[in-house]
Amino acid sequence: MRILRSIGLMKRELSAHRRKGRTVGFVPTMGCLHEGHLSLVRRARKETDISVVSIFVNPAQFGPKEDYLRYPRDMKRDASLCRKAGVSYIFYPDAKSMYPAGYSTYVRVRGLTENLCGRSRPSHFEGVTTVVAKLLNIIRPDRMYLGQKDAQQAIVLKRMSGDLDMDTDIVIMPTVREKDGLAMSSRNRYLSADERSAAPTIYRALQEAGVLIKSGNGDAAGIISGIRSKIRPIAAKIDYVSVVDTKELKDMKNIKGEALIAVAAWVGKTRLIDNIIVRR
Amino acid sequence: MRILRSIGLMKRELSAHRRKGRTVGFVPTMGCLHEGHLSLVRRARKETDISVVSIFVNPAQFGPKEDYLRYPRDMKRDASLCRKAGVSYIFYPDAKSMYPAGYSTYVRVRGLTENLCGRSRPSHFEGVTTVVAKLLNIIRPDRMYLGQKDAQQAIVLKRMSGDLDMDTDIVIMPTVREKDGLAMSSRNRYLSADERSAAPTIYRALQEAGVLIKSGNGDAAGIISGIRSKIRPIAAKIDYVSVVDTKELKDMKNIKGEALIAVAAWVGKTRLIDNIIVRR
Repeated sequence: MRILRSIGLMKRELSAHRRKGRTVGFVPTMGCLHEGHLSLVRRARKETDISVVSIFVNPAQFGPKEDYLRYPRDMKRDASLCRKAGVSYIFYPDAKSMYPAGYSTYVRVRGLTENLCGRSRPSHFEGVTTVVAKLLNIIRPDRMYLGQKDAQQAIVLKRMSGDLDMDTDIVIMPTVREKDGLAMSSRNRYLSADERSAAPTIYRALQEAGVLIKSGNGDAAGIISGIRSKIRPIAAKIDYVSVVDTKELKDMKNIKGEALIAVAAWVGKTRLIDNIIVRR
Repeated sequence: MRILRSIGLMKRELSAHRRKGRTVGFVPTMGCLHEGHLSLVRRARKETDISVVSIFVNPAQFGPKEDYLRYPRDMKRDASLCRKAGVSYIFYPDAKSMYPAGYSTYVRVRGLTENLCGRSRPSHFEGVTTVVAKLLNIIRPDRMYLGQKDAQQAIVLKRMSGDLDMDTDIVIMPTVREKDGLAMSSRNRYLSADERSAAPTIYRALQEAGVLIKSGNGDAAGIISGIRSKIRPIAAKIDYVSVVDTKELKDMKNIKGEALIAVAAWVGKTRLIDNIIVRR
């Protein structure tokens, strides 16, 4: 495994592999890897010849009052996990080479980014689409692997890649959870012991909603208020509980076909998100 | 020469050439080709193995009251000019395949797009950067050739390509002019005979300003009012006369180093642009 910090070197290495007919699988991350990331890496290893993990805490996707500076970083552990998982390259650029002085180009996906996390984090997705457009141009992977836990992000990036005629297939993999159901996230380590034991309530509320919907309940407002009342006791603040379609991420009134049930809530000072997809 | 309308087919053709180690040169156009475009094509032919001309009147770069519908189209003549010039491929997509239903991704270059034409055509450059990002992803050229006549466009696209880590070198070629100095433009054919004979005044005013600057005059306001007073008699409206630096396109007060002197003015109902670069 090699750890490369230079954009130019990363490009040259991968061009050489591509010239030899090797396929490239890519897992973009902000580091602090957990089993969710590693499930993506294993799939990349299985499906492509060269696997690349990027580790870049992207300042452009954090709001001014968000946790960019305190976001956990642990490169030594990440490198060791990647090595064990058989990763070919870690791409580990610094912010100055990704956004040099005078940087001024931004990619935006309209519509899809306005609901859900787009409401509470207004510039977040522009930061995500911009950095991933750059990463896709640097890595030029055949496949990029994303987790279902960041459902809106995955749908937005799939749209971006298609709209901009990029050659990367997007593979979305199931959310990996702790034994008690909490979705794995680098931010879980912010939680105190009490918060950690309360946090699985979010997924339990989603599961109960899923059971209701599958058994025929199509009333989104009722489903949402059911989830809210279960989460409220453990949440300092609920950013949203939403039922949306999985294509355009528009709020559904009557649940029909495939629906994404998504939650963003603060447990103490930590913002957690989770979601399930159900079909009625 | 082949004319391809399908994005997928265009990609596959060029991948095959690339696999054989051939380089690709690209000239993006809105068709209605003139000697300016052909100078770009000849340079592409000289420097790269496979030359691609795109012909696409891009709706996204026209404002709601602009000339998208009446913009001149002449595919038969364009194809014949390209064939004679030795072009390998014309890429000639339709608007529905470039912007299918649900299209939602836009690329924006901030800062550089706010002055000059960005003032009078507020969404124009977002349309240009979006379509060229798509074209660069489809064609993946080693080099893209642009004309100095659209100076701001060339600088914006160079910034975009660099910022987004695209692998295309941008080559900017001198403005090609009619014998009387009028910059070649597809829009010149809108001009009546009287307007056509008045139009070279714009370039003459620029040239005179250039002589003054080279001889030491650094007073931008004086230079601008000199150009304005020469153009005013032949212009229905002047959108701007500006003196800006060539890096960030910011207005200069005292002309120092390299300056772009740029004009956009309406001759009758036709909006013409022209510019020169001078060094003081």
